[in-house]
Amino acid sequence: MNKYWSPLVDELSPYTPGEQPKVDKLVKLNTNENPYGPSPKVLEAIKQATTDSLRLYPNPDSDQLKQTIANYYDIEPEQVFLGNGSDEVLAIAFQALLKHDDEERPVLFPDVTYSFYPVYCGLYEIVYDAIELDELFQIRLRDYLKPNSGIIFPNPNAPTGILLPVDAIAQLLEENTESVVIVDEAYIDFGGESAVSLINQYPNLLVVQTLSKSRSLAGLRVGLAMGNADLIEALNRVKNSFNSYPLDRLAQAGAIAAFEDTDYFDETCQAIIDDREDLVSALEQLQFKVLPSAANFIFVRHLRLDAEMLASQLRKRGIIVRYFNKARINQFLRITVGTLEQNQLLVDAIVDILQTKD
Amino acid sequence: MNKYWSPLVDELSPYTPGEQPKVDKLVKLNTNENPYGPSPKVLEAIKQATTDSLRLYPNPDSDQLKQTIANYYDIEPEQVFLGNGSDEVLAIAFQALLKHDDEERPVLFPDVTYSFYPVYCGLYEIVYDAIELDELFQIRLRDYLKPNSGIIFPNPNAPTGILLPVDAIAQLLEENTESVVIVDEAYIDFGGESAVSLINQYPNLLVVQTLSKSRSLAGLRVGLAMGNADLIEALNRVKNSFNSYPLDRLAQAGAIAAFEDTDYFDETCQAIIDDREDLVSALEQLQFKVLPSAANFIFVRHLRLDAEMLASQLRKRGIIVRYFNKARINQFLRITVGTLEQNQLLVDAIVDILQTKD
Repeated sequence: MNKYWSPLVDELSPYTPGEQPKVDKLVKLNTNENPYGPSPKVLEAIKQATTDSLRLYPNPDSDQLKQTIANYYDIEPEQVFLGNGSDEVLAIAFQALLKHDDEERPVLFPDVTYSFYPVYCGLYEIVYDAIELDELFQIRLRDYLKPNSGIIFPNPNAPTGILLPVDAIAQLLEENTESVVIVDEAYIDFGGESAVSLINQYPNLLVVQTLSKSRSLAGLRVGLAMGNADLIEALNRVKNSFNSYPLDRLAQAGAIAAFEDTDYFDETCQAIIDDREDLVSALEQLQFKVLPSAANFIFVRHLRLDAEMLASQLRKRGIIVRYFNKARINQFLRITVGTLEQNQLLVDAIVDILQTKD
Repeated sequence: MNKYWSPLVDELSPYTPGEQPKVDKLVKLNTNENPYGPSPKVLEAIKQATTDSLRLYPNPDSDQLKQTIANYYDIEPEQVFLGNGSDEVLAIAFQALLKHDDEERPVLFPDVTYSFYPVYCGLYEIVYDAIELDELFQIRLRDYLKPNSGIIFPNPNAPTGILLPVDAIAQLLEENTESVVIVDEAYIDFGGESAVSLINQYPNLLVVQTLSKSRSLAGLRVGLAMGNADLIEALNRVKNSFNSYPLDRLAQAGAIAAFEDTDYFDETCQAIIDDREDLVSALEQLQFKVLPSAANFIFVRHLRLDAEMLASQLRKRGIIVRYFNKARINQFLRITVGTLEQNQLLVDAIVDILQTKD
């Protein structure tokens, strides 16, 4: 360790995002991006905002975007927090709401989940307990009813794609009243119902969303959290002690247009849901076991073929999927639902691999 | 305090940025934005990048932008770190390099300086000692030669505008070898020489810059740090434990174009320097004492008029300047150098106020 480093730095195990290849030719089904571009109205709004006004700081509180989101979800702007992608929103939530420095009350999240959660715990020195999903990879709520400094899980869960119904979340909130429950809804628009409808009822519920997936703006970096105004105030205090202006002028303009163009949003989400179901059928016919997905990706395991080998064979055929070399899931692949054409290329490549192996 | 908040949240004293008024008519000389727009090539590059590719995550390491900056300063890409504005870069540097949890060795910075520094110390629970500037508001280097966990100051200092020559920084580095020295060069391009020329010589020097001032991109949020690759590695570890993608695709594209268009940059910086000198002369004739400035702002005190009253009278005439109600500087105003026309409006307004008072 370098003597100039803070002691913490040496212990960090940073998150590794999925590969962003420099070659355009690859069929990229590894980071759950939307196969459709953003709404044309978003691109137009960004171009309109690309003027000399970029010399000026953006609105530090993104007031207009907060109002747009509040209108969309029928909540108040004071119940909305914004950040530079949902990863930043989550980081701030860990620091502001989940860090209580009580070893008897760890933060709880599933053992198979978004792998950034333990990284945040490392960054903020938060004790956590990874709770085992059941044998069907489902969250078993009764396992979370123990002393804790907070509960967090993606819904639908990643990388499994499995959805927890909103009434199950309400039940958890009824029984867990002393700490914050964060529902990370990165993939909620592909078949789930948002828990945002519960925020006025439960003062300890924080719902986190992103524009990277269903709104097709991974390249623009906008994430949000919604909850009781007191929870949002905690996030704002940390944000304003870190960086007053997390959202640039173009991101604010683009995000407003994205929430306003509900038709485009509804159409593209529905197309992805439809294509997901077709892809699931095709893969099941090729002897894959597919976990029930409410996301824009599927989590699959082949009955005979080794997952790592399969990922590597797909890569050779120009298709990237995500493989996690981790306990319990090292025979699974996480595959983003692409365009119809991309999905067909994937199926064709798998058929080819199966024939080569036979 | 809300029971769901982390204990830290209650103690935070967030930074308050300068006002961003919602009315366009005001002459805005309060947040040191550039009076000229960004290079037209920057606007064009952003528009070119506003495509369907926004559905994809950005390059997490901003490799091309790092290479562009490395070329500009004749350093290596591994010596460059990027963040969502220099406020984020500074925050990460406080956490990664200045936090050593040793009460005997506080972090040192001037008593009159960028007021975000004590806020970061609050966020990361870092002990600090604010060292008094001398009676001319200059940094006296010998005051910093005591046990410390790091030294940080803006150069030129803000809000004073006073520059420390680069050989004085080299001398400090010769004598302070056991902790990191961060030189925050937000305003260096308006008349100073960057300390980046020293990074290969001193492994504990970190130079922080922003595109918000001299490159006229406050609205785009891009900041950078340059230093020994080991220091940059510490920053990357924290960044990758916080948010893999701090710079969106449009910010990367715009920032590359900004560093490439050196002609526009040189011209606009020189224009601001020239206009600053004219403005200083005009104000001196109106009985202002002006601290020597190497920045795009000046720090002024009137020989008779109260600063807060003056700020308020200027505001009534449609001109906003920055007033700090703080010990030692509560009779000063910080005034951004605007366009020729804006500077003239400022001078006219002051003449008017003086006549009204006489």
